[in-house]
Amino acid sequence: MIKIQGKSVFGGVAIGPIGILRKKDKKVIRNHVEQVEEEIKRYEDASKEAESQLQKLYDKALNEVGEADADIFHVHQLMLSDMDYVESITNMIRMQNVNAEYAIAMTSDNFSTLFETMDDDYMRARVADVKDVSNRLIQILSGQGDDMLQGDVPVILAADDLAPSETVQLDKSKILAFVTRYGSANSHTAILARTMNIPAIISADFPEDCEEKIGIVDGASGCLYIEPEPELLREMEEKQQKEQKKQELLQTLKGKEDVTLGGKKINLYANVGNISDVMTALKNDAAGIGLFRSEFLYLEKDHYPTEEEQFQVYKTVAETMAGKKVIIRTLDIGADKRIDYFNIEPEENPAMGYRAIRICLDREDVFKTQLRALYRASAYGNISIMYPMIISVEEVKKIKEISAGIRRELSAAGISFGNVEEGIMIETPAAALISDLLAKEVDFFSIGTNDLSQYTLAIDRQNPKLDIFFDPHHPAILRLLQMVADNAHKAGIWVGICGELGADISLTETFIRMGMDELSVSPAMVLPVRQKIRETT
Amino acid sequence: MIKIQGKSVFGGVAIGPIGILRKKDKKVIRNHVEQVEEEIKRYEDASKEAESQLQKLYDKALNEVGEADADIFHVHQLMLSDMDYVESITNMIRMQNVNAEYAIAMTSDNFSTLFETMDDDYMRARVADVKDVSNRLIQILSGQGDDMLQGDVPVILAADDLAPSETVQLDKSKILAFVTRYGSANSHTAILARTMNIPAIISADFPEDCEEKIGIVDGASGCLYIEPEPELLREMEEKQQKEQKKQELLQTLKGKEDVTLGGKKINLYANVGNISDVMTALKNDAAGIGLFRSEFLYLEKDHYPTEEEQFQVYKTVAETMAGKKVIIRTLDIGADKRIDYFNIEPEENPAMGYRAIRICLDREDVFKTQLRALYRASAYGNISIMYPMIISVEEVKKIKEISAGIRRELSAAGISFGNVEEGIMIETPAAALISDLLAKEVDFFSIGTNDLSQYTLAIDRQNPKLDIFFDPHHPAILRLLQMVADNAHKAGIWVGICGELGADISLTETFIRMGMDELSVSPAMVLPVRQKIRETT
Repeated sequence: MIKIQGKSVFGGVAIGPIGILRKKDKKVIRNHVEQVEEEIKRYEDASKEAESQLQKLYDKALNEVGEADADIFHVHQLMLSDMDYVESITNMIRMQNVNAEYAIAMTSDNFSTLFETMDDDYMRARVADVKDVSNRLIQILSGQGDDMLQGDVPVILAADDLAPSETVQLDKSKILAFVTRYGSANSHTAILARTMNIPAIISADFPEDCEEKIGIVDGASGCLYIEPEPELLREMEEKQQKEQKKQELLQTLKGKEDVTLGGKKINLYANVGNISDVMTALKNDAAGIGLFRSEFLYLEKDHYPTEEEQFQVYKTVAETMAGKKVIIRTLDIGADKRIDYFNIEPEENPAMGYRAIRICLDREDVFKTQLRALYRASAYGNISIMYPMIISVEEVKKIKEISAGIRRELSAAGISFGNVEEGIMIETPAAALISDLLAKEVDFFSIGTNDLSQYTLAIDRQNPKLDIFFDPHHPAILRLLQMVADNAHKAGIWVGICGELGADISLTETFIRMGMDELSVSPAMVLPVRQKIRETT
Repeated sequence: MIKIQGKSVFGGVAIGPIGILRKKDKKVIRNHVEQVEEEIKRYEDASKEAESQLQKLYDKALNEVGEADADIFHVHQLMLSDMDYVESITNMIRMQNVNAEYAIAMTSDNFSTLFETMDDDYMRARVADVKDVSNRLIQILSGQGDDMLQGDVPVILAADDLAPSETVQLDKSKILAFVTRYGSANSHTAILARTMNIPAIISADFPEDCEEKIGIVDGASGCLYIEPEPELLREMEEKQQKEQKKQELLQTLKGKEDVTLGGKKINLYANVGNISDVMTALKNDAAGIGLFRSEFLYLEKDHYPTEEEQFQVYKTVAETMAGKKVIIRTLDIGADKRIDYFNIEPEENPAMGYRAIRICLDREDVFKTQLRALYRASAYGNISIMYPMIISVEEVKKIKEISAGIRRELSAAGISFGNVEEGIMIETPAAALISDLLAKEVDFFSIGTNDLSQYTLAIDRQNPKLDIFFDPHHPAILRLLQMVADNAHKAGIWVGICGELGADISLTETFIRMGMDELSVSPAMVLPVRQKIRETT
């Protein structure tokens, strides 16, 4: 038995064979070719096939992870038809009388070398693209196997790291757990694991020869066991069953109230990122939507979504939730969420850049379209609007002026709308520090702990090198939370948490003591948090 | 007369002819060449000449702006000798019987197109490099004029924007003022203007035909006047003279105490970035060095500076300041300050990344070398040590453990050292918010307002798109300053400001009221701040 200690990303126990996801080195042999035009035809056919494979992957990715992450397949398509790339391959076949596989491999090497000399993050990414596309072509030409997992048995998936583009190609039903050597606790793999509700560990340096061996992933402790001893296997099977029972027990909490033993009622809502999440929220018995991320409407499209397109979605959500509160956050792009048609220039520090409300206040047309759609949809349910990345009272006054204008327009046109609460995200230290002033301007506060933590600690949460310095329970963060709660109540408005910290059940009691009126968590965490609330005195 | 309204970056009045710095389009004609090998030789000679020009520029830049900004010339040298680039040019001469200029221009276009299709910030920068290097070669071959300013008359320098690499090539004695179309208030041009003490404005869309016309730059109001009317000219000449007198008046403040009318004494120190700044600080009568940026020792070298190399510099500074306080900040690299030999990977958000104390705590050998040099030098003057980018009490405890170890080592070896104060920068919201806890651990606080502001407001100060959202006097920042001052005094330690805000004389009175014990400002601002302190009641 080997025990590998990694870092926990998501709890739970998985038992099964290990499958390593590795980039196979394609073997390429140099052959002399007489019929060069036929060989070029072979290459061109393979290129067409690759083009079509990439299109399918793009479409699949668009559905599963949205446009931003699907885009990598478009980049690959571009590379495939890049003039220099194509010319290099065909010239090599023609001038050196070599087989297509060899010409592709050589071109791949040459381009990679050129890009590598540029010595830059972005160029290294391009090296991977050239190699990826070239491997795909060689694979098609030679009929060699795919990089992806073979076989029908579900496995513990072990990999160096997983790019969003790679996870798209995976058959999710065949994955018991994730184990990666690299990646951070906030990586895409981590988010995927949480969504899929399967154990995941990172920083686990598994040996290359563990393929097909039986493994145990203990997500909570961050351990991977290879060829476990019978005793441990039994122990873990028991643990797995216990967790299953706990899951079943949680189900019995459905329909129960979110009230502490002391009688304090908490509004326990769910965070959702698209329409299907809304169903999951209902399935998990959330009392409302505390954060509806409207970005997906923009990320999924290759144009600005129209007022009508947005209206239909917001209306559907409002109707589906049938009178329960639905807090829709206005567009929050920028930082790590990029959209081509917005034409936003790359930035040195996108997390502290041109994003969210800053874009909306700068491009009022985009903002107004969304606000009109939101107000129109508010006639069909209980919609509230929430503005992200606020730092000043001036911004809030500007926003209120714009939204009042929209209401006047709608009234003048005889279009009805509901009584909409307007609130703001508290996710910058500035907003927290002047929350006394901001509270006078809005109907509620929702604290975005993810961004608030990263700015307060000056730590990019996506950066794995800083995990050792990151303390989600840092006293500065907790003090800001208390400050915001106090200032909200002094002004008579409600306050909640919609960041990931809201689902941290080791803090639920603290949050209740702070006076939080609402917690909005991922759908899968609604019942565990309910359990914790109901146990709190 | 034309009036162009831009944004003020640095005050003062400049009057003189306007010189536009523009990238000339090199005219290239295609000629048929019979003697291809001779033509290739022509190209190769030009390439050698370009190589030598670039080396000279590199050396000049190294002296003037340090290694980080000089590095662009090394990148150009690499491009010059890039295999693909060289082959493309020589092949074109050989196969198409064209002149070298034409082959270079075509290669430049081809490479640029290839890079441009990559659609990325970094690649656009490479496009500029290819064009820059190609233009240099064509210029050498054709004897066409340089991009840089001609003539001997000092001018108001107008440009689209100025890269650090370009400012290096400028003869500073020929510049009366800077006027740029782009750039941010925190750009290199702005910093250069402040250092050179000349007026500068940005976002000024000057017309192309203003070349050689007489202009007036009114730095304070951000205005450029072209062909001013006689009346305005007289008015501005008067203003210029008044400012000169004001400068002279400031000189009379030398030797005077930094005491308010109410008798409160402020320690007015200077921020310095290298040895020659220390002389400027003394010349401006600073009472000490409040921030000695030790980075230059690392940036100037292509290897880790040894303990001995560092010791000599710190000792020189301590001795030069002759008993006056010298607060040396330990290595603060990362973010926008990169050093090749540290091999730090590029980051998505470097400003919230692996930097400063995080690097030092991760790579103790580097940290200990610097601490040993600092302690040894402390025997020769009044040295204090200051640690940057602190966010937690744990970090401070770890640092104190390491520095206590160094003191034990030195004592055991019989090496003497002074009584060194150890303090920390307060430049993260986290540090400000837990300053009550941190105050118990250190001898002093120095508030770094630049970083503190950017994290508090979640605004990258180098990003010109966010200038409209950035408010340096934001109440959240002022509240943090007050909080830090109060917590320092409760624990009986002193507190000061060493960020740029410290030199904002519209706030001097506020800072004194807050209880700041020290202000550390750029050498040129010592006397203006002294004047303000002495006027405060």
